[in-house]
Amino acid sequence: MDEGKTISQAVIGRLPRYYRYLGDLRDANIERISSSELSGLMKVTASQIRQDFNNFGGFGQQGYGYNVKYLYTEIGKILGLNDAHRLVIVGAGNLGRALIGYSNYESRGFIFEGIFDQDPDIIGKEVGELTVRPMNELEDFIISHKIDIVVIAIPKAGAVEVAEKIVKCGVKAIWNFAHTDLNVPSDVVVENVHLSDSLMKLSYMLQK
Amino acid sequence: MDEGKTISQAVIGRLPRYYRYLGDLRDANIERISSSELSGLMKVTASQIRQDFNNFGGFGQQGYGYNVKYLYTEIGKILGLNDAHRLVIVGAGNLGRALIGYSNYESRGFIFEGIFDQDPDIIGKEVGELTVRPMNELEDFIISHKIDIVVIAIPKAGAVEVAEKIVKCGVKAIWNFAHTDLNVPSDVVVENVHLSDSLMKLSYMLQK
Repeated sequence: MDEGKTISQAVIGRLPRYYRYLGDLRDANIERISSSELSGLMKVTASQIRQDFNNFGGFGQQGYGYNVKYLYTEIGKILGLNDAHRLVIVGAGNLGRALIGYSNYESRGFIFEGIFDQDPDIIGKEVGELTVRPMNELEDFIISHKIDIVVIAIPKAGAVEVAEKIVKCGVKAIWNFAHTDLNVPSDVVVENVHLSDSLMKLSYMLQK
Repeated sequence: MDEGKTISQAVIGRLPRYYRYLGDLRDANIERISSSELSGLMKVTASQIRQDFNNFGGFGQQGYGYNVKYLYTEIGKILGLNDAHRLVIVGAGNLGRALIGYSNYESRGFIFEGIFDQDPDIIGKEVGELTVRPMNELEDFIISHKIDIVVIAIPKAGAVEVAEKIVKCGVKAIWNFAHTDLNVPSDVVVENVHLSDSLMKLSYMLQK
């Protein structure tokens, strides 16, 4: 990878999808795939695929296609999945629980270390292999467990305050499900999942 | 709105966020806002805002700014939020439950009519105001209740089959949370929320 080059957000946004398809191919024991086969599978043009991959040196497609396992590993590296990430979830409601159970994160290096809530009825309950902790332990926990990603899965009202707190603890990445945008310093990255926005987009498209 | 004009996906993608901010402003009883004030609030350039709004005729900003309530209503209309949408959720696990409880959908015209699962231990249980129904009732329910949006909140393995079934019942919109892309006819719109993709993007950004 050319370290000096800026990769566009659009390309980055497509990498996880490539990674997902390549993981499926690898699981199906497929060893090689051409850009045109991958194109057919993913409904993206082959030239788009080649262009995207050229941002990272092209991954050595020869006449006989890409090596699936190699490509999967390389894209994983680019996505930073080789380094383990330690996460906590703020909010042990249905959404927080769903996020823990949603997918096989651990194999991709995402380790959920803790889950926090302010509701006394929920604190102390088991969620998967974790026990819900009270919010006043959040900051110490983040520091002592070297947490690098915080998932905000609480309503809008408390989210801004939580974000301010965790940023002060040195957290540099927030996965935000609260229905609000967070104002954070420019060295903190936020990935927003605004579910209602997504549903509204569907409503728009449905009219057409 | 100029009916003949094609609005870019990027503009459409930004509409729900405008709608969200305008809703907050309206709730705060703010009557007018200029594009530069909105720009400061939303961290988008004022010229971007004006350009976006010009796709829909500009919403009549005068020297004294936009009328918040009018703009909110108009963007809501464009998003199709004036027509009620009837939804069912397939999957009554944590994610399905979270989606029902997540936000105040009803006020935006999204009405959850039913929730379905295949797990005999879950069928018959209450989720909010709904009772979990067995999967074999899904198709009849979709037709009899004129469901127009189906939410897929089950693992990848069953999602493709469910999508095929509901498309045959005439459903034209799918909100897909399964960790797979769905192959549907071109007149069916799918809004994917691939949570792991979103987490991987965060992992990528965290490295920079």
